[in-house]
Amino acid sequence: MRVKSALISVSNKNNLNNILKVLKKFNVKLISSGGTYHKIRSLGYRCEEVSDYTGFPEILDGRVKTLHPKIHSGILFKRNSKSHRKVLRKHKFSSIDLVISNFYPFESTLKNTTNLEKIIENIDIGGPTLVRSAAKNYKHVVVITKINDYQNLIEELNIHKGCTTLKFRENMSRVAFCETASYDTTIYKYLNSRTKEIIPERLVINAKLFKKLRYGENPHQVGAIYGDEETLNLNQLHGKELSYNNYNDIYACLRMIKTFPKNKGTVIVKHTNPSGVSIENDHLKSYLSALNCDPISAFGGIVACNFKINQKVAKELIRNYYEVIVANGFEPKALKYLKTRKNLRIINYNNSLNNNNFKIVSGLNSFLFQNNDDHVLGGKNFKIVSKVKPTKKIMKELIFSFNVCRSVKSNAIVISQNNKTLGIGSGQPSRLDSCKIAIEKMKKFKQFDNEDSIIAASDAFFPFTDGIEALVQAGVSAVVQPFGSVRDKEIIRFANDMGIVLAFSKTRHFNH
Amino acid sequence: MRVKSALISVSNKNNLNNILKVLKKFNVKLISSGGTYHKIRSLGYRCEEVSDYTGFPEILDGRVKTLHPKIHSGILFKRNSKSHRKVLRKHKFSSIDLVISNFYPFESTLKNTTNLEKIIENIDIGGPTLVRSAAKNYKHVVVITKINDYQNLIEELNIHKGCTTLKFRENMSRVAFCETASYDTTIYKYLNSRTKEIIPERLVINAKLFKKLRYGENPHQVGAIYGDEETLNLNQLHGKELSYNNYNDIYACLRMIKTFPKNKGTVIVKHTNPSGVSIENDHLKSYLSALNCDPISAFGGIVACNFKINQKVAKELIRNYYEVIVANGFEPKALKYLKTRKNLRIINYNNSLNNNNFKIVSGLNSFLFQNNDDHVLGGKNFKIVSKVKPTKKIMKELIFSFNVCRSVKSNAIVISQNNKTLGIGSGQPSRLDSCKIAIEKMKKFKQFDNEDSIIAASDAFFPFTDGIEALVQAGVSAVVQPFGSVRDKEIIRFANDMGIVLAFSKTRHFNH
Repeated sequence: MRVKSALISVSNKNNLNNILKVLKKFNVKLISSGGTYHKIRSLGYRCEEVSDYTGFPEILDGRVKTLHPKIHSGILFKRNSKSHRKVLRKHKFSSIDLVISNFYPFESTLKNTTNLEKIIENIDIGGPTLVRSAAKNYKHVVVITKINDYQNLIEELNIHKGCTTLKFRENMSRVAFCETASYDTTIYKYLNSRTKEIIPERLVINAKLFKKLRYGENPHQVGAIYGDEETLNLNQLHGKELSYNNYNDIYACLRMIKTFPKNKGTVIVKHTNPSGVSIENDHLKSYLSALNCDPISAFGGIVACNFKINQKVAKELIRNYYEVIVANGFEPKALKYLKTRKNLRIINYNNSLNNNNFKIVSGLNSFLFQNNDDHVLGGKNFKIVSKVKPTKKIMKELIFSFNVCRSVKSNAIVISQNNKTLGIGSGQPSRLDSCKIAIEKMKKFKQFDNEDSIIAASDAFFPFTDGIEALVQAGVSAVVQPFGSVRDKEIIRFANDMGIVLAFSKTRHFNH
Repeated sequence: MRVKSALISVSNKNNLNNILKVLKKFNVKLISSGGTYHKIRSLGYRCEEVSDYTGFPEILDGRVKTLHPKIHSGILFKRNSKSHRKVLRKHKFSSIDLVISNFYPFESTLKNTTNLEKIIENIDIGGPTLVRSAAKNYKHVVVITKINDYQNLIEELNIHKGCTTLKFRENMSRVAFCETASYDTTIYKYLNSRTKEIIPERLVINAKLFKKLRYGENPHQVGAIYGDEETLNLNQLHGKELSYNNYNDIYACLRMIKTFPKNKGTVIVKHTNPSGVSIENDHLKSYLSALNCDPISAFGGIVACNFKINQKVAKELIRNYYEVIVANGFEPKALKYLKTRKNLRIINYNNSLNNNNFKIVSGLNSFLFQNNDDHVLGGKNFKIVSKVKPTKKIMKELIFSFNVCRSVKSNAIVISQNNKTLGIGSGQPSRLDSCKIAIEKMKKFKQFDNEDSIIAASDAFFPFTDGIEALVQAGVSAVVQPFGSVRDKEIIRFANDMGIVLAFSKTRHFNH
């Protein structure tokens, strides 16, 4: 198809010059409206105004410009239909073979203002209609919606001497419908956010490709990450490119760090499970405690600190092999140390980050949707059901232990003392097995202080006494678990018989 | 705002009568085009044709009907703007206060034909433009896009005596943009499918709410599932409503069952991990073998069979407590047995199901995207690196074990014999720990035959010899693992020293 005439109506007027040059070279007649018309004229090209073309003025502050049968007939008629061509001739309409349009900047308006009127005014009507008409009729018409595609159009026209191929037009049509779908999705999401509906009637996602990843969870799977760089907000300072599994583990880390008090927590994650967690004012101690809980599992893991890494911590970090270090800042000297490890990925994350408050997982032609389980839990969430009541210190430890437990894959058991984990049992179909794993870790790495109480947390209730019994036998003297079993009373009786503290949480925390 | 005039242009003409009755009651002037006009007239209501209203005919087989400044000015003008009202008067345009429109059935056309021309013809241009104009101007205009909302409009008009509230109009605008976004998303996805691009430049999802769930992974989280009932294709025959965790576990089951030979596999899943898997021609044996691998963990789990459940199997099934039974059909008598368990969820699934071939997980304002790891692996995927070569039987067992291993959460170790698992170690940050768990299960439940070889599979390479050593000491005589460690040679040497079979898989299978 030869391009003989083009309608150009762009909100973003960058990079027009090159394309106008080529259109002139191939004698393409230009039609345009409003600001675009003036821009084209100022660049020194001939152009007819839409209002002259249609014989109808631009009205309502530009709300109605191109919504005219002459324009849309010129775009939409089938070039290979005798009757369509006859209609065009009858009405003295002519063909429009190329539409270049981008839309009022709705999304950036949202970022710049909360003024409803301004936001609504930035819903483009004419532009998307032009684009949809042209995209529907891609058999005959070219549509360009992205400035990035200007160069592709220029090359296409140059190669084919003023013509375009069907393949090119179809591809541009695909891009165009992606743009209109994205545009209306953004509008819908904005209007939806005003109603504050938690579970909308449609799950609408429209995210741009942030990065193709080297591969997915495994090398034979393709992988990619979608989202805005600015909202993702992970600033890589050094090292190899982040992999799919790195991202997945970093997310697990940051979900956990969100529940920590500011400026004093470390978590080491491997395969989305924490191998060790510690909260300490002393940053070096915080890191070492997290490491020592299970130094074997920590090997090749991801370390995340919600504080700024100093020189001392960095020196210790590079003694072990890690894939990624995530922290809320790095002192220059610390960074220098870390950078001596060529491949080590160093990530600065922004503490003030607001995450999406929902979680979506696909499966079997469907999407499971829920809000995140990431609010910080305090003591009010617990009811002490044992005769022995916890001291303040033990209460604090129960809270720590339970908050860590929520981030461990179910069934999850965490044993802790003095704001550090001693043993973590994860991912078992049987709760008793998770208890055994946690106990074994504790016994193996011996990070406990015999003078202090040892605490355990369970992400869901104990269905039988066997699990809690194993914990108590291993030295645990205070346990927190959600209530809800038919055997809750038995569990309480057991706790009282043993003289331990037992807290029932109001909330359960499965995490799969 | 009083509704004085309405433009109606619907592709689906159902349920118009009631709304027309109310519009007549409030003296609303009707404008309509093409088929809708004739429908309204045939129902006995007065109506002006768009072409009479605009003074411009419908042309190009209906491609251009309502794309006219008189229509869009009437919709888009600001009722509270003097200058806008003046423009309307000057051009003798009048106000259009209500737009009722639904679109050419693009999605159902896709289902009914593969004819490109027909599909493209069903891209509606006029309808979405009318709807977007009205939705933008919701401050003054009502837009109705869903037949379900007719009744809401009727009630709104009745309550407010021919007027509507801003809240109602805003809500209908939200619904309208959801419709246009969905519509163009479907078009984009169709055009995208023609290009066969695996990683598109935008991740576009637009799924309708299939069901609000009682809650998410935990009772304090909201949960929902999005998707089409027909593509989801899980037919619940009995029992309590499926929960979020049930769906999640069912997906894990069905992913696994996909890799089984037809009509002879059972898997029991708990917390997304298999507790036992068996492939047997004898269905009863298949179920019992899967159960006996770890009957403790199986308690409260989900059983999935890729065969039709008969009476014998059903009798055994109800001896244990399960949350869900999923199978490829149920014999009537079997169903009767199972239904004696009031709460037991019984799900019939369709074997021929084509799943989405991608997996999406949200995290931190982004989406991780990959294609599924669900192609069936055969022996060609393995390279025998040990001196001892496997018999055919052992080779078959290695394939079975490895295929199960892929569905276990990493780090994953599976020990198996005769097409059934003997021990599964899942979800550990350390591979050695997963080995120990698998070994302990095998020793505990003693499902092995001393006469036969015991096989083990690992989802990723052994970083050291310690894991494989533990397995061999426990009686394993053939191992499959992906290659890739710097210590691969050590592992091979160890296998040869021990005289076991060692197969290196070309593919790794992390699963988090």
